[in-house]
Formats: sequence, C-alpha cells, structure tokens
Amino acid sequence: MTNQAFVANLYHAPIKGTFDYIEQACIEIDGLGMITQVLSPNHSDYTQLVEQHENNSSLTRLADHQYLLPGLVDLHTHAPQWPQAGKGLDLPLHDWLNQYTFPLESSYSDLTFAARIYPELVDTLLAHGTTTAMYFATIDSAPSEYLARVCKEKGQRALVGKISMDEKSMCPDYYVESSTQQALSDAEAFIQNVNEIDAQQGLVYPVVTPRFVPTSTKALLEGLGKLVSHYQCHVQTHASESDWARDFTEQAYQKTDVELYNETGLLTRKTVLAHSIFLSESDKETIKSVGAGIAHCPLSNMYFADAAFPLREALDKDLHVGLGSDLSGGPLPSIFHAALDAVSHSRVREAGTNTHIMEQRGEANTRVSFVEAFWLATHGGGLTLDLPVGVFKPGYCFDALVVDSNTQGSQVRVYDDLDSEQDILEKIIVHTTEPAISSVWVNGRKVK
Amino acid sequence: MTNQAFVANLYHAPIKGTFDYIEQACIEIDGLGMITQVLSPNHSDYTQLVEQHENNSSLTRLADHQYLLPGLVDLHTHAPQWPQAGKGLDLPLHDWLNQYTFPLESSYSDLTFAARIYPELVDTLLAHGTTTAMYFATIDSAPSEYLARVCKEKGQRALVGKISMDEKSMCPDYYVESSTQQALSDAEAFIQNVNEIDAQQGLVYPVVTPRFVPTSTKALLEGLGKLVSHYQCHVQTHASESDWARDFTEQAYQKTDVELYNETGLLTRKTVLAHSIFLSESDKETIKSVGAGIAHCPLSNMYFADAAFPLREALDKDLHVGLGSDLSGGPLPSIFHAALDAVSHSRVREAGTNTHIMEQRGEANTRVSFVEAFWLATHGGGLTLDLPVGVFKPGYCFDALVVDSNTQGSQVRVYDDLDSEQDILEKIIVHTTEPAISSVWVNGRKVK
Repeated sequence: MTNQAFVANLYHAPIKGTFDYIEQACIEIDGLGMITQVLSPNHSDYTQLVEQHENNSSLTRLADHQYLLPGLVDLHTHAPQWPQAGKGLDLPLHDWLNQYTFPLESSYSDLTFAARIYPELVDTLLAHGTTTAMYFATIDSAPSEYLARVCKEKGQRALVGKISMDEKSMCPDYYVESSTQQALSDAEAFIQNVNEIDAQQGLVYPVVTPRFVPTSTKALLEGLGKLVSHYQCHVQTHASESDWARDFTEQAYQKTDVELYNETGLLTRKTVLAHSIFLSESDKETIKSVGAGIAHCPLSNMYFADAAFPLREALDKDLHVGLGSDLSGGPLPSIFHAALDAVSHSRVREAGTNTHIMEQRGEANTRVSFVEAFWLATHGGGLTLDLPVGVFKPGYCFDALVVDSNTQGSQVRVYDDLDSEQDILEKIIVHTTEPAISSVWVNGRKVK
Repeated sequence: MTNQAFVANLYHAPIKGTFDYIEQACIEIDGLGMITQVLSPNHSDYTQLVEQHENNSSLTRLADHQYLLPGLVDLHTHAPQWPQAGKGLDLPLHDWLNQYTFPLESSYSDLTFAARIYPELVDTLLAHGTTTAMYFATIDSAPSEYLARVCKEKGQRALVGKISMDEKSMCPDYYVESSTQQALSDAEAFIQNVNEIDAQQGLVYPVVTPRFVPTSTKALLEGLGKLVSHYQCHVQTHASESDWARDFTEQAYQKTDVELYNETGLLTRKTVLAHSIFLSESDKETIKSVGAGIAHCPLSNMYFADAAFPLREALDKDLHVGLGSDLSGGPLPSIFHAALDAVSHSRVREAGTNTHIMEQRGEANTRVSFVEAFWLATHGGGLTLDLPVGVFKPGYCFDALVVDSNTQGSQVRVYDDLDSEQDILEKIIVHTTEPAISSVWVNGRKVK
C-alpha cells in the first residue's frame, strides 16, 4: 500500500477538556496506516500535499456534512455476553452471573456456537465505530483464540483475554479451571498463540484476564502476575465494582482490590481496571503512579455498581481513563452512547436523587462535559491502553470514522445557521446511531 | 374504508406490571381505524375471522421476526426545540431557557422557519413509533396551529398547545404575551381553530398550555382555568420540575404547583403535569382524586430536575403516569429510549450515587422493571390522556408499530433458542432504534 490522504472536516480532542475542529483538514497516512501529516488549510504545505495526492488519485474528499472523528475505543466489553444484551438486568450482579452469564459463557466451548456469535458481534462494534475493543472472552482457550482471529480478519484492533477463574467455591462446577496450574499454563499458551496470530501488524493483542478477585485464588493472581512480567502484555480485570465485590476482598485479604492486584504484579501501565467505583485515595495514588487505567462503564454502573464512579475526580487527578460498553452488564454496544451516559450519570451524581433531602442532595461540582466525554471515548481510551490511537497526530494509527448527517437513517440533524462547532460535536455524541456512521477505518484499512 | 385484519405476534400491557404476548393473534379493525376484535389462535372464531379476511384480501400477515406493539405515547415534548436537541445541556434550567430556548422558540413567528422544522420533527417522531404526542408549541398562534395541521396531515395523533406566558418580569421582552387579556383571547381562538382543523376524526386536539408558574400571572391561570371548564379540553404544564421552580411557587403563593393549578381550575382528568419531581403527599392525593396525570421524562430529569422523580411511588399509588421525551430538555426523540432511561434512572435512585455514604446510599425498593416501563410507554400514556390508545382491545384505536428484528439496520437481535418472550420484549425496549421500526399505523392509517 502506498500513501493516501483525506480532506475532511475533522473533530478530535488532543487536549482533555477541549476539542479541535479543523475544516478541510488534510490527513496523510502511509502504507501501514500510520498518520504522517495533519495539515490545516492555512499551513504552507497544505496545497502542495492536496495536489500531490489529487494527481496520484490517492485523495479522498469527504463532503461538507461528513465529519471525520477518531475511531472509538471500548475499554471493557464481554464478547460472549452479546446474545443476552438487554435481558436479565433486573437481577443483582451475583445472581445475574450465575443465572444468565456463566451458563451462556460456558456454551462457547462449542466452537460452532462461537462462530454463530463472535463474527456478528465484531461486525456490530465496527459498525458502531468501535475501532479498538478490549474483550473479555471466556474461560476456554479455543473460542477465545477464535475471537482474536475474527478481529484480525475483520480488521478490528482488539485486545483479547481468555478469562482465568479457578476459585472453585465461587465458580459453578461446569465453568471453572480444572486447577490453578492448568489455568496458568492455559493463560500462557493463550498469550503465545495470540501473539502468533498477529505477529506482523500489531492489530490483535493478548490480555491476561483474571475475572475478578472472588473467582481467583491468590496463587492464580500471583502466577498471572509473573506471566505479565515475562510477556509484558496487557491486563484487564474488574476492580471494586460493587459493595459486595469490595467487601469480599476486604474480608478475604484485608486489602483493596487495587492493593491486591498491585502486590501480585497485575497492576502495570498496561492494566485496565473496569469500574473501580470504590477506590480509596491511596488506591488512586497507586493507579496514578503505576500509570494503570480505568474503564468507566456508566450504563452498566447504573444497574450493577451500587453507586456512581467518581469520574470527575479521576479526570482532575489525570488518571488514565476511558469508556467501556461493558456488554452485557451495559446492554448497548455504542461508545457514543456510553459518552452520553457518562455525562448524564455525572449530572445525576452532582444533583443527587432523593427528593426527601433538601440540603446537599448530591455531590457539588462533579459534572462532566460532553467535550470531556468525547475525549474519554477517543483519546482517553488510547492513552489508557498505551496505544497510539484516539487522536489525529503524526505517529498515530489512522483509526477513524465518518459521521454523515445526511445519510439515510442518520438522526444527527445539523442546521448550519443555528449550530456552532461545539453544538455539532455535542449532537454527534448524543444522536449518532449506527446508520449515521458511513465509514470506518482501522490502521488505514476501510472496515465499514 | 372497510374492515381489515392483521395476523401478528403481538406484545401489549393490558395490566400494569405484566405483559401479554400472543403468537399469531388476529386483530380486526373497522373502517375508522378502531379495533373490533383481538383473537388468539385458540379462540373458536379465530379460523373463520382469518379466512374471511384472507378471502376478502383484507388480511395482512406479519412475519415471525416482526413484533406488533401498541404505538408509543409521548406525553411531553417541545416541538420548537427540536433543532437544539442535544446541545446546551450543560446549563442550569433558567440559563438554558434564556440563552437557548426562548430565542429559538420566538423564531417560529416566522412561518417559513416553522415549515422548515415541524414537518421534519413529526416525521421523525412517527418514524420512532410515537403515534400520539402531546406538544408544547410556542407562544405564537399561527405556527402553533400550523403544527396541528402538520400532525393532522401526516396522520399523527397529536395534542397541541399554544404556550401561554404573560408574566413580563419572567419572560424576555421579545417573547411574552402583550397582555393577559390578549393571552386569554389568543388561547381561546387557538382552541376553536384547532377544533376546526380536526372536526371529524378526533386526531388532533387543542391543549391549554400555561408554560409554568413563574411565567404566568395568577389572572392568566384563572382565565385559562375558565377556558378549560368551558371547552373541556386537555391541559399541559410543568409542575415542580426543580428546586427553583418549587421554591418560586412556594414563595409567590405559599402553595405547591399542584395546589395552585387545582385552585385555578387547571387540574382535571385531562391534565398532564410534566416532571412533578417534588410532590407532597397531599399533592399526590389531589392528583389521584382528580385523575390528572404525570409525564415522566427521565433523561430530561437527569439534566434539569435536581432529583429523581418518585416513579415507584406513583405506580404503586395508581396515579396516571406515562413517559415523555421532553425534547429538547431530553435530547432523544425515542420513547423506547425513555423507557430504558426510566428503568436505568430508577435503579440509580434505588442504589444511590455517593460512594462516601456506606449506609442507606439510595432509596430501597424503588426500582421499576422493563415490563412496567413498557406499560408506561403505551397503556400508561393512553390512560393519562384519557384516550383509547396504548393497548390492543376492542374499542381502542389501532395505533401500532412493528419492530422487525431482521430488517436492515435493526439492532434488535433475537435468538429463538436463547430468548424467552420476556427477554425479547426487554431487548425490543433496549435495542429498538428507528430503522428497526418497519411500519407504523395511527387510527388504522399506515404512516410509516
């Protein structure tokens, strides 16, 4: 592949809390899908660059009603739970796991079942503009490796984890590792095999994935920590998602989840902690000093977290944080929707809910803006994963999507005489549904 | 028009808190669009009815992956605010009104502006399955009557109000009635004119619409109360939406909004109170004894209400209550989405948000189920308006929609071997976006 370029009206968020809008920006990418230049029309090289690609027939011009945005990053999603997205949300977390989730996840040991679900899920996420996804798969290695191959084939940037869970008292007997030793050797083989799948392009990555503390023996956590140290791979797990989960670790270890993960070698620059609702001040310091990150999953939190994640504080403390759909604890596959939910949920947190309380109903000054939510969905996600995605800059991957306000089925209504640049961005976040996303690229490859 | 019939897999909620699913139900409707029969396949007349319509070529058979539901009822939506849906939500209510809303609303005095927006809005709501909408229009009569004509023409059941607001100290000088007398005579002429538009079919209704207490003089409220008594028409207004709004009435009148509306003749069986966040026990009793109703607008509440509406208590007390989009205080036009938000918001209310509180963070046992939210979106809405819509029963209007899980762009995924009847209903509520709604009827007329 040779270089190509795009001329487009572009939104991105290089700096948290603000956005850049560049009308008729020219983005050049190389044959590997990396961005080499991003020029505004007033740059002295702009005309030459555009003309050069025009002459080479390597220029794509987007229309005025098409907006180029960085691809969305989903930091936390359970691939096997896709078929149950939207159902069973009335149950508490523990019952939901045992009645719905574990039986469903175990059925992926049948690869024909996996083949029925995973390709459709990856297509769905790509269609919603999710160019990078961090997936929990299942306990079984074969279907989890299959998920990684599906992502590779369809061109989605994916971080895939085979789940490790060996604490027999907390797992159903049909869905638990046969032994800690087996769990560790399977986890290691999974890392090697996924590295094998994608030795060349850096599109698909293995992730060490202890489900959460209650389903892990300490020996498993320690063994996985050694794998992480050896293979320098990503880690994902759940941290302090609910009162129950927090209390479990406190009672079993007299520690917080963050302390336990840190001591077992599982907290690194490439660790993503889902939820992290109940963090102590010391936990936050630890996360910050290590450079680990947090997947904020607002819709899922509304159902299962027992409280609101202190997102405002995480942003102000410059923690690495982005958004997750948490399929299917959160039922919707759209990271645009997660951004809307992040704003809405922060407003509810700020205001409080209880009409019987007249003073200090909520927590003052904890709202998050749409512009911040846009950063979370893109740049924040890339930063959390320590991957060069989520912003249009030289040296970053060209992972991008087009929101087209004029295409069939688009719910994004732009009124040129009424809407400012920021208004349009806010409307894109709030109103973009799948049909409005007319094109998606990952690493420069068009995948929608 | 002669009788026709449909054979369809049907969901509706004749009884609050439960749903009926009838596979291959046969619904017969007459030439005026009223339902005459709803038969299950095991009914003794079923075969004859189906054959009769088959022979007359008056039978429509839906496919297995198509689900027939009652049309959705939007109890509270501001038609003129559609162009700003999704922007400006960062402001407090009072600033949002003055900076965004009032300037926009005033621009509809130019009928060419109204003609640019209203047809598109009505098309959008119909496409989202909203077969009945209760609209706030603007202060100006001509564009408000135009909105009623657009609804009539496009076939949407609509209750349309010209806004009355005459308190000069609380309204911008460019957007206020010239006098109380003028306000009352305009309101009366509006009632007469809208009744004229739709003298025959009962599709479009005028609504007496004082915006809310702060923008109304007491003389206006009293005068409007007399019009309501004379014309027996619907009423819509905002009640106790925020701390500010509640306190305003308390300070100005030493009363609650409900007390004031009741004393001025504005609280009737056909009154819809938007929001109603801060109701006293006595307010609830009054609402119940009068038979007035409440439009619950969960997404808007997250931004502007300062607290969560006590929906659980309203349902348990058998108040008339349904859902509203509250465009554009709520930015989304979908009542399916409002149903999801009602459930999510009730869960947040139940759990609470503040991680620093360890005991009694939320309000126990206040969650609302998806099945209850479905009732709110359909039957509850019809009941609140005192109109025969929202359920499939003889004597009710055939206002209906089809959710097609197989159609292009549908995000509703049904797995026949994995999903129960209730699972499918929950997925429909959570995942239905505009493309999945393949057909919509109002009064038996196909409008999508």
